[in-house]
Amino acid sequence: MDFNQLFHQPSVRPYLMSARFGLEKESQRVDLKGNLAKTNHPATLGSRDFHPNIQTDFAETQVELITPVRASIPEVLRQLAMLHDVIYRSMPKEEMLWPLSMPPALPESEDEIIIAKLTDQEVAYREYLAKVYGKRKQMVSGIHVNFEFAEELFRALFAEQDEWTDFEEFKTATYLHVAQQYLHYRYIYTYFYGAAPYALDNYFTEDAPTQPVRSLRNSNYGYKNKEELKVSYRSFACYRQSLADLVAQGKLIAEKEFYSAVRLRHNRQVPDSASIQYIELRNVDLNPFEENGINAEQLTFLQAFLLFLCTKEKVEAVEDYIRMGEITNHTVAIEHPFAVSSLQNELQSFMTAFKAFISDYQLPIDPEYVANWESMVAHPELTLAGRLLTALNGRNQADWAVEAGLAYHKKAWAHPYQLAGYRGMELSTQILMFDAIQKGVQVEVLDEQDQFIQLTYQGKTEYVKKANMTSKDCYVVPLMMENKVVTKKILAKAGFNVPSGAEYHDFDLALADYEKYRQQAIVVKPKSTNYGLGITIFKEAFSQDDYKEALLFAFKEDQDVLVERFIEGTEYRFFVINQEVQGIMLRVPANVIGDGIHTIRELVEQKNTDPLRGRHHRYPLEKIRLGEIEALNLKEQGYQFDDILAKGQKVYLRENSNISTGGDSIDMTDAIGEDYKTIAVQAAKALGAEICGMDLIIPDYQQAASSPDAYAIIEANFNPAMHMHAYPYQGKGRRLTLSVLQLLFPDLTV
Amino acid sequence: MDFNQLFHQPSVRPYLMSARFGLEKESQRVDLKGNLAKTNHPATLGSRDFHPNIQTDFAETQVELITPVRASIPEVLRQLAMLHDVIYRSMPKEEMLWPLSMPPALPESEDEIIIAKLTDQEVAYREYLAKVYGKRKQMVSGIHVNFEFAEELFRALFAEQDEWTDFEEFKTATYLHVAQQYLHYRYIYTYFYGAAPYALDNYFTEDAPTQPVRSLRNSNYGYKNKEELKVSYRSFACYRQSLADLVAQGKLIAEKEFYSAVRLRHNRQVPDSASIQYIELRNVDLNPFEENGINAEQLTFLQAFLLFLCTKEKVEAVEDYIRMGEITNHTVAIEHPFAVSSLQNELQSFMTAFKAFISDYQLPIDPEYVANWESMVAHPELTLAGRLLTALNGRNQADWAVEAGLAYHKKAWAHPYQLAGYRGMELSTQILMFDAIQKGVQVEVLDEQDQFIQLTYQGKTEYVKKANMTSKDCYVVPLMMENKVVTKKILAKAGFNVPSGAEYHDFDLALADYEKYRQQAIVVKPKSTNYGLGITIFKEAFSQDDYKEALLFAFKEDQDVLVERFIEGTEYRFFVINQEVQGIMLRVPANVIGDGIHTIRELVEQKNTDPLRGRHHRYPLEKIRLGEIEALNLKEQGYQFDDILAKGQKVYLRENSNISTGGDSIDMTDAIGEDYKTIAVQAAKALGAEICGMDLIIPDYQQAASSPDAYAIIEANFNPAMHMHAYPYQGKGRRLTLSVLQLLFPDLTV
Repeated sequence: MDFNQLFHQPSVRPYLMSARFGLEKESQRVDLKGNLAKTNHPATLGSRDFHPNIQTDFAETQVELITPVRASIPEVLRQLAMLHDVIYRSMPKEEMLWPLSMPPALPESEDEIIIAKLTDQEVAYREYLAKVYGKRKQMVSGIHVNFEFAEELFRALFAEQDEWTDFEEFKTATYLHVAQQYLHYRYIYTYFYGAAPYALDNYFTEDAPTQPVRSLRNSNYGYKNKEELKVSYRSFACYRQSLADLVAQGKLIAEKEFYSAVRLRHNRQVPDSASIQYIELRNVDLNPFEENGINAEQLTFLQAFLLFLCTKEKVEAVEDYIRMGEITNHTVAIEHPFAVSSLQNELQSFMTAFKAFISDYQLPIDPEYVANWESMVAHPELTLAGRLLTALNGRNQADWAVEAGLAYHKKAWAHPYQLAGYRGMELSTQILMFDAIQKGVQVEVLDEQDQFIQLTYQGKTEYVKKANMTSKDCYVVPLMMENKVVTKKILAKAGFNVPSGAEYHDFDLALADYEKYRQQAIVVKPKSTNYGLGITIFKEAFSQDDYKEALLFAFKEDQDVLVERFIEGTEYRFFVINQEVQGIMLRVPANVIGDGIHTIRELVEQKNTDPLRGRHHRYPLEKIRLGEIEALNLKEQGYQFDDILAKGQKVYLRENSNISTGGDSIDMTDAIGEDYKTIAVQAAKALGAEICGMDLIIPDYQQAASSPDAYAIIEANFNPAMHMHAYPYQGKGRRLTLSVLQLLFPDLTV
Repeated sequence: MDFNQLFHQPSVRPYLMSARFGLEKESQRVDLKGNLAKTNHPATLGSRDFHPNIQTDFAETQVELITPVRASIPEVLRQLAMLHDVIYRSMPKEEMLWPLSMPPALPESEDEIIIAKLTDQEVAYREYLAKVYGKRKQMVSGIHVNFEFAEELFRALFAEQDEWTDFEEFKTATYLHVAQQYLHYRYIYTYFYGAAPYALDNYFTEDAPTQPVRSLRNSNYGYKNKEELKVSYRSFACYRQSLADLVAQGKLIAEKEFYSAVRLRHNRQVPDSASIQYIELRNVDLNPFEENGINAEQLTFLQAFLLFLCTKEKVEAVEDYIRMGEITNHTVAIEHPFAVSSLQNELQSFMTAFKAFISDYQLPIDPEYVANWESMVAHPELTLAGRLLTALNGRNQADWAVEAGLAYHKKAWAHPYQLAGYRGMELSTQILMFDAIQKGVQVEVLDEQDQFIQLTYQGKTEYVKKANMTSKDCYVVPLMMENKVVTKKILAKAGFNVPSGAEYHDFDLALADYEKYRQQAIVVKPKSTNYGLGITIFKEAFSQDDYKEALLFAFKEDQDVLVERFIEGTEYRFFVINQEVQGIMLRVPANVIGDGIHTIRELVEQKNTDPLRGRHHRYPLEKIRLGEIEALNLKEQGYQFDDILAKGQKVYLRENSNISTGGDSIDMTDAIGEDYKTIAVQAAKALGAEICGMDLIIPDYQQAASSPDAYAIIEANFNPAMHMHAYPYQGKGRRLTLSVLQLLFPDLTV
């Protein structure tokens, strides 16, 4: 079977760079000075017994992030970024992740290295490892890359070859071949991306290199089995059998104790499967220059490299070939990062062949990556280990690592309401996704533009759009809320106060009712309000001519017009989830308060430095603008932008209270009494809503809700924003997203 | 208490003509020749034990229509019209309603008059009536008008008066006063609108007038208690006590046997209530010129008349005053319709005062009504009885009645898919409302423009928008279906065939995949399709340039573009409700078939005469247009509108199969096998949809659904039209609306 020839087939070529990736990334939790954390794994992450994405490896401080499998490098990296945001903000803010594969300075006594507090079985396993290898060696961290060629690629290859008649056998043989080659050639990856030059205090108990090297972790000083284990890569059956034998003989406590650079993986759903489904590459050091430990260039290299290895000739003396790979890899791993490698000739011929391969098949690879690979071959100081050594510049590796770690820590906390990788989505969805991931709910984004996600927890799947449009509400309920007249009818019938009024389709009938309204405060408005167009408010007695004009104005916008009683008071948003008021929000128009020193313009600029404020609805608050409307508003109050306000003097730059025009959000949940909350809950119930933003006008919330005209419900919202409750301008943040998750998954522990 | 003065108050005046109305209308079911029907009350109407709107009165043939209470005359009349449509199309098509109060010719033997087949108790009551009054007298029909002054009017009046301190007592006293006055002055109504000049065969067993009269029904020959009953109208307490006494003494079998022209009614929810809530006027004859038996002029008269009667002075000698009313009423009732009444002076002075009253208070009454009342006073032949006599023109009253009845019957059947009173609503909603009313489900239209209705059955309320957006579907499910990409992802994951493909946000990435598609049949389309803009189909191998052009074309319409496999075949709509395929529809583009004689234009015009075809989506099919697109389409096939087609030759005037552009709907429900139906049901289940239109492309439905590429699901629709299934161009109609009702109300017997 000649892969070179197969790869040239037109049916195969479009799929050459199609693959699936899954990453597992370990790192140590440390305090902000770089000492191993003394705290437990964060409790906010729920139970580790089943958390699919955030686990602990050997030690309690050793976080393991597990991405879902994704069909492209950007997608899997975005998952990794997202998991980093979640783990960072689930840990105490005084902790960060150690950016190196080699652990930070370890305690002098091994007893102070705490084994991960998992199930008894998992703890026993780790205690065995501690006994056999010593706890210190287990503290090394790295990344495992699970790699699977795309099904389409295998299908196309299979159709073009004639050696194999069984598809699964063909796949298995191909992976086996690639694994053998990878084990032989992995020194190339070590040369490029090895990144573990030094050990820190109390890591080595034995003799160790005194010079910096490319990768201690990938050398014989690293992470390897105690004795030479005979695991065969001749066939998948042999591989599985030899591993099983080693466990039976007690040479391994479990198959997972086999520390090879490549593991052959079958479909876990089919325990007896004779097919390899994917391979796990375990020789990737953390890239300390990357906040998430790895970058697209590295993964692209691995992908193209594995493809390239397919084209290598089949090996007969498999054991020797792999043994040779171990020797060359150790050799390269313990070389000085700046040294020209003893395998320089091999590296050069590889690079020539690899470049030709990429260009022959026109693989869609960023030319900058290829140029960098070439440069690294030519200039050892440009390899990852070389760059790290340069960066250290003679400093202690730990100091550099703390500095790098702090930078990543700062970035993760800069906009705590955003979720890395998904910052283009709506804020409420980002927050919901954060909470879901944190609690161990699996998240799939089905449509990013549409804010459509899929959540799976303990085998149960729920779909969510725009963070709170779920299966828990009936279809007809939001349609009801969308229609203000229908909402009012239903609420009125159920006995709630709503602004009384009438709907008119006919101008003359509306006009004829002037007498009914003339002594009242009323609002005349088009039935479907669009940005407040066509609305007139009469707060006191008004003439028939004024009324007529208001009607004409409203009828211009819609064929139906509402005349409603105007209720004076403050509007509050009651957020009801699952028959409970989870948050009450007061929105106040954009404003500044004087200090006797600064101009209005300066006060606005000061207020806008709040990290909660931004633009384009991707922040919990919007920056206050200094535009025409604001200028006009100030002018009406007798001010200009450059006026200095007296100390304590409050000035509004807007009439409307929308957050989107710079308004302040003020949490009132604890201030407003149970009686009003009960009304909001009961009203939501009357509408049949599980999730609902109920807007009440309340003249004075100190008054009992049962007193006459104590409130009026003016609107029910079926997709109320949740982010403003999570990060209010003033008052306590309310994690409504967690309540949504609990509504969807009642078993969830939050 | 001076009502004249009260009515002048500015706070009262706007509400003078505010009131609530409920109508109960009886009529006899007859065959199309005017003989009493021999059939049972229609079984399609479900159980009479609780039907709120369609009942039987005395006889099995005597239909009683009961409107819900409505706050305006047009609204209550529209309810009555709607009920007529329902009863007409629930009866065999060979039956109609008799348009007169006086029954059609009765059988010679009373035994052939069948008592309504109701509960034992109700039958026993009617058997008693038959014994006491004879069955014949019970066969008279009329309308009862339940009248209630608006709460706002009473509130305003109560606030302005100082005689009463209790609101309920004030209301009760007012109704009592009005009832006394009405009983005294009711001859005026009899004069205007009495409409029972003749009896037909076998009605009278005793002597009877030989001349035509204004109203036999309202005279002493009509419907009245056997003996003079002493029921007091002095107070509501006396009224109730005297009625109770008569029942206790055995003079009445039940209070409802008291045949007064006015009954005083309390709130039925409060059996011991001491307040009158409304009054029931029982002296209204069927207006034979109206298809529904009554018109707005009559109801307006009653309303204004009752208001006018408020202003009459309080009476002390109540009994005498009412007795006088009975005498004058009988007098007027048995006068010849053309005769100047013996109460002409009284009629004239009433009219003068009444007109002044209307004008003084500027009551919003159509001036034509007032003019007609004046004319009727001046010209007896213009009264309703007068007009009827003129119309008879010497003919037998029965012949005229059959003719009128047939006209109303024809009208009710002309567009059987429409519902009178609600023809502006969407057809599917009209059909759903029809079915609901028929089965005894109460319907409230909450928002007509929005197609939002409320259904109540046996105390349970459901809300429905656009006929099938209900509480039975989850909110997120239609949102899912709205997003084609999400739908496809979920269906594909669940194992259904969907057109494979990819979504592109980036033009270059899409272009780079040319190699993947070049040998396939594909569709390139914007993610959100709008009227088919931006779509390109490649049915065979295509060049990269063509592909690029297709991408540019699609990206012009949307920022995301889909490239999907194109599936050749026929598209069928599978309508799934409650996990069952209730209908399968094939839509065929607008077409005609030649006959060797007519031109295409003529064939189109012929086809368009089908009563199912209309315009503006208020018909099950649209008329085929002869526009530019059609002309162009014909031209491409080498035809013009004025060409004559050979016999049997089929020509399409459109490429698209939409019903809205004249397409044909063909029911395929019985033709397509269970295997395909199971796929549609399971796919709906995978999406979690209760109501769903699943669009499948099937190359050959004779082939098993399990064969490769036997089908592909291309879309799931969350608000599929139901009317086209009910009235297809070809094949069996499917009443999907009934299935929706059953889904909402599982107890409903359909």
